[in-house]
Amino acid sequence: MTMTDMTYWLELTGVAVFAVTGALEASRRQMDIVGFILIATFTGIGGGTVRDVITGETPVFWIRDTAWIITCIGSAVVVYFTAHLLERRYVALLWLDALGLAMFGVTGAAIGLNLNVSPLVAIILGTISATFGGMVRDVVCNELPLILRPEIYITCALLGATIYTVGAAILELPKQPVALVAFLCAFALRAAALKFRLSFPVYRARPGREY
Amino acid sequence: MTMTDMTYWLELTGVAVFAVTGALEASRRQMDIVGFILIATFTGIGGGTVRDVITGETPVFWIRDTAWIITCIGSAVVVYFTAHLLERRYVALLWLDALGLAMFGVTGAAIGLNLNVSPLVAIILGTISATFGGMVRDVVCNELPLILRPEIYITCALLGATIYTVGAAILELPKQPVALVAFLCAFALRAAALKFRLSFPVYRARPGREY
Amino acid sequence: MTMTDMTYWLELTGVAVFAVTGALEASRRQMDIVGFILIATFTGIGGGTVRDVITGETPVFWIRDTAWIITCIGSAVVVYFTAHLLERRYVALLWLDALGLAMFGVTGAAIGLNLNVSPLVAIILGTISATFGGMVRDVVCNELPLILRPEIYITCALLGATIYTVGAAILELPKQPVALVAFLCAFALRAAALKFRLSFPVYRARPGREY
Repeated sequence: MTMTDMTYWLELTGVAVFAVTGALEASRRQMDIVGFILIATFTGIGGGTVRDVITGETPVFWIRDTAWIITCIGSAVVVYFTAHLLERRYVALLWLDALGLAMFGVTGAAIGLNLNVSPLVAIILGTISATFGGMVRDVVCNELPLILRPEIYITCALLGATIYTVGAAILELPKQPVALVAFLCAFALRAAALKFRLSFPVYRARPGREY
Repeated sequence: MTMTDMTYWLELTGVAVFAVTGALEASRRQMDIVGFILIATFTGIGGGTVRDVITGETPVFWIRDTAWIITCIGSAVVVYFTAHLLERRYVALLWLDALGLAMFGVTGAAIGLNLNVSPLVAIILGTISATFGGMVRDVVCNELPLILRPEIYITCALLGATIYTVGAAILELPKQPVALVAFLCAFALRAAALKFRLSFPVYRARPGREY
Repeated sequence: MTMTDMTYWLELTGVAVFAVTGALEASRRQMDIVGFILIATFTGIGGGTVRDVITGETPVFWIRDTAWIITCIGSAVVVYFTAHLLERRYVALLWLDALGLAMFGVTGAAIGLNLNVSPLVAIILGTISATFGGMVRDVVCNELPLILRPEIYITCALLGATIYTVGAAILELPKQPVALVAFLCAFALRAAALKFRLSFPVYRARPGREY
């Protein structure tokens, strides 16, 4: 495990948080308990799995350490028995997804830097780690992927990954406070995007026509 | 090839069976012969490819041994010329998918155990090997993924993988009879699910609302 | 980098061309600039990433050399500011996709042969490299995948990969002219397919019924 203690715990929390969003999506689709566990696991470990596979860090992280799978299964079971308490599950899903997005953007970049990749590649790895799990969740469950919604989304992961990479690798500042600042900025941007429906100017010329 | 003879043949049969389901789906979508071969190949080798990639067993199995690709192409060609003989192709697809699901659940777990992963991870690997090919088939062909249908599905792969893992790795029983029992239990459960529309209690509180 | 100079430049052009098709799709979906970059990058490097991952050539090519990512980002930015000049973006997308398809079919097979895989596997690797990026683009953007459209598509990649493999590996002809001929044949076939709506006889018996 090539992570400092802090990124380990941030990453574990991120996995749990993403697993919960997967389980919430499973509850929206009225799946059974096994479906809850499957979608929660895909969402929780999807981004990190892709990161490990493309960097060649195999066997991937959740094969080396069983804690990750157990975290996903536990999150799914908890949501299965408590989701009915939530008034608006999709809103909860969106906010938890925002939390996971900010966490994984930072930890993905940190793990990339530990593998001695270039700063640009570290930023891309952070962004992929943060967005891939949610994308799999949405595609498998026939949901419009969050990355296709108008509000600022990927940019938040990009922001967190960039702040961490610039701070830790280029300016060589102490890693833990930099990670905290990067996480907070990424989450704040996504929170603002959700709250105020913040979006970049989209390409407005005209929508696509059918061929 | 880190497989015993029996798992090799079980795996080869599983690849052929899944390839046939892919080709049947291609016939439902009225593709041409190349589409038949592509979808058959994706479905047949998809699960095992993901398994090899995440465990770091690369180049993946079908690069090391050409027999697998030839099996998929052969299955696609046979289906192309015989699918019109079937009265109800989707029913055939469902039953063959059940057969492949039960086979790959067991062989996936067996291959995982040969790589010395923990029992829990071996069970997950079996489940992924068994479900991934069909998921790719359904997503690429715009079909509602079988894992989202109400009848018991993933659980069958999980059951086969669990019986094999517990029997072969924890109780240290002889592998071949354990594999056979695990396969039969998994297939019987899926058969019952298809026959009697067996399903777990789903999460019923309420379906998801639009945001 | 296990590529000759010629396949390197062909591959780099192919990445740029596919990145442009991704950005055009992003413009059809009216995304913001970050969405343009994300979809362009997925489409440009998707096929090669899968090729590297399944052959075990990790870290994948764009981690080892930053030029690829910069190419994708540059293509996305150029399209963001110029797409409104195009009269019919989907037609441009189709023709550029044809160009990339022909390029990647050849380079994918060439890279496979450099890794000493069997000719059949080299052809499959070329076909996967050529079709995967576009498939991800279409699935993520909710577009009907090009491989499901009736016109001849995958066959073009298959043709280019086969001509190159037979010429360079079996007949042992000089690689550069063989690559050029393979590329031209693949592109010509796709061009004819687009121009004259060329298609193979599809499986006509009857379309799939709902279960």
